[in-house]
Amino acid sequence: MSDNSSLSDNWPDLAGRIEGHRHILPVRVYFEDTDFTGVVYHGSYLRWCERGRSDWLRLMGVSHEELYRGKDESPPLMFIVRHMEMTFKSPARIDEVLEVVTETKEWRGASITLKQDIRRDDKLLMRALVQVVLISDKGKPQRLPKHLARTFGYEDADSPVIKR
Amino acid sequence: MSDNSSLSDNWPDLAGRIEGHRHILPVRVYFEDTDFTGVVYHGSYLRWCERGRSDWLRLMGVSHEELYRGKDESPPLMFIVRHMEMTFKSPARIDEVLEVVTETKEWRGASITLKQDIRRDDKLLMRALVQVVLISDKGKPQRLPKHLARTFGYEDADSPVIKR
Amino acid sequence: MSDNSSLSDNWPDLAGRIEGHRHILPVRVYFEDTDFTGVVYHGSYLRWCERGRSDWLRLMGVSHEELYRGKDESPPLMFIVRHMEMTFKSPARIDEVLEVVTETKEWRGASITLKQDIRRDDKLLMRALVQVVLISDKGKPQRLPKHLARTFGYEDADSPVIKR
Amino acid sequence: MSDNSSLSDNWPDLAGRIEGHRHILPVRVYFEDTDFTGVVYHGSYLRWCERGRSDWLRLMGVSHEELYRGKDESPPLMFIVRHMEMTFKSPARIDEVLEVVTETKEWRGASITLKQDIRRDDKLLMRALVQVVLISDKGKPQRLPKHLARTFGYEDADSPVIKR
Repeated sequence: MSDNSSLSDNWPDLAGRIEGHRHILPVRVYFEDTDFTGVVYHGSYLRWCERGRSDWLRLMGVSHEELYRGKDESPPLMFIVRHMEMTFKSPARIDEVLEVVTETKEWRGASITLKQDIRRDDKLLMRALVQVVLISDKGKPQRLPKHLARTFGYEDADSPVIKR
Repeated sequence: MSDNSSLSDNWPDLAGRIEGHRHILPVRVYFEDTDFTGVVYHGSYLRWCERGRSDWLRLMGVSHEELYRGKDESPPLMFIVRHMEMTFKSPARIDEVLEVVTETKEWRGASITLKQDIRRDDKLLMRALVQVVLISDKGKPQRLPKHLARTFGYEDADSPVIKR
Repeated sequence: MSDNSSLSDNWPDLAGRIEGHRHILPVRVYFEDTDFTGVVYHGSYLRWCERGRSDWLRLMGVSHEELYRGKDESPPLMFIVRHMEMTFKSPARIDEVLEVVTETKEWRGASITLKQDIRRDDKLLMRALVQVVLISDKGKPQRLPKHLARTFGYEDADSPVIKR
Repeated sequence: MSDNSSLSDNWPDLAGRIEGHRHILPVRVYFEDTDFTGVVYHGSYLRWCERGRSDWLRLMGVSHEELYRGKDESPPLMFIVRHMEMTFKSPARIDEVLEVVTETKEWRGASITLKQDIRRDDKLLMRALVQVVLISDKGKPQRLPKHLARTFGYEDADSPVIKR
């Protein structure tokens, strides 16, 4: 992990929590997230989903900065969004506390499909399906490096497939 | 139209152009649109799509502000995004000029499905399918008001269906 | 407080903490906060400052949503930024944990001047001086309502002046 | 200039216009720029100022991407904001057309101070003073390279000082 760890120790929940096979990140609705119609701008949900994915990876021990810097013989790597589908069900408002719930739906070679729900208490506000791909700095899809495959619990790093 | 029209006269292309049944809006990639990986942040495409939809409506004579203020017996109305699907094909970079190309795919009662492409010259960078719904300030889906139905060229405002 | 409190109970540090006369809010640097030069986009500091101010007010018992809804005989009220000065001292990077430190410098009638520092560990990255004004929905500056004046510890709500 | 020029030719005003010693860029207020209080979010003015500065440089023949790539013996260079002061005078609203007016106030070695006004017709909405510094990728302030100094009309590139 490359983050400045004394500060993270001071704020234990900052990256959310892993509960079972899901990651939960709280987000607060601020001015910046709303628009003139009085509710949350639809683009804010996309930003919150990205925060959820980053913090889920972070709690698994994976840092964007480290991936991007490369490591040993590995080229610079980054996760990019290839495909995203969002269904907006109910609006959110200023000051509310929401939760971004992230879980893996399918993992196949260089491609991961995540389900991400944004909810307020028990109410589902938005559901996203996000296909994320690991690429090199040349834009080529990359198989998950072995140390990451192990992190995510694959028996056999050469043909990882998870489905839920 | 509620915009301050002397200024818009001075910048004739600011809302893009309608060519045939498509609307084209140019956008420039600025610092704010990029992220640390050196290319455009995926959320920027969503903001550009929204600009394309707003300016397409604008050139059709529909203003968000006017809809929202209500008119005659009409309650405050707004278009919201119900569902959105985005496929990211190729990255964009700082300083580039892109075009947002918007066209109607299907229009059915209160619901419009738009296809929105973001391209650089002839290269397709992102394709979105966006389902937009007209709602009242109470959140109820609303049939398109007659004056809008006429604007969009419906023979029969009571059962408008367009498919392409 | 109008926020959905069961969720806030579950995330006790979400609005930061008050330590002495200062408020401290942790923020994480995500993709959305960076730009193509590899560091944090200068506009992100402004958004973080606004989060700091909102959460400082929140921990004092003041909610934007409640102010805006009005209360008893009070008209809809909101805090707006009148003047802002920002000095950028050192860059921040993806994945880092930063802290927004907010304190009152001067409070005079409808106008509050806050000092807001953004730091990483002991290093100061940005310092802002922000003059915030309480206005009605007509845009008129408003004296702080008595219940708010009491919240902020004024002996005499009619002529509150704090200087530090 | 590194932008894809066939597209820029098609949209001649996209980077605004230089009139006398000032640069003028039109911006439209979209959903993304507003917040729940019904007017423009204060952070949007900062983004618009940055667009004004980038397009002013662009029309002078300077591209961020080219600077950042470096050239001949020049290291990667970028303009960063060192200090910014913003006074908010009057709100803007959805659908409005505004203009960002940028002019040089002082230029001294590696540091430029710009005055940036955002106005609607003749009404001034916000005024910013922005000190921008040219730095290398190591973060060191850099004297303006000779070819840029010539672009900006300095007689003597070694001690350029402009004041207005």
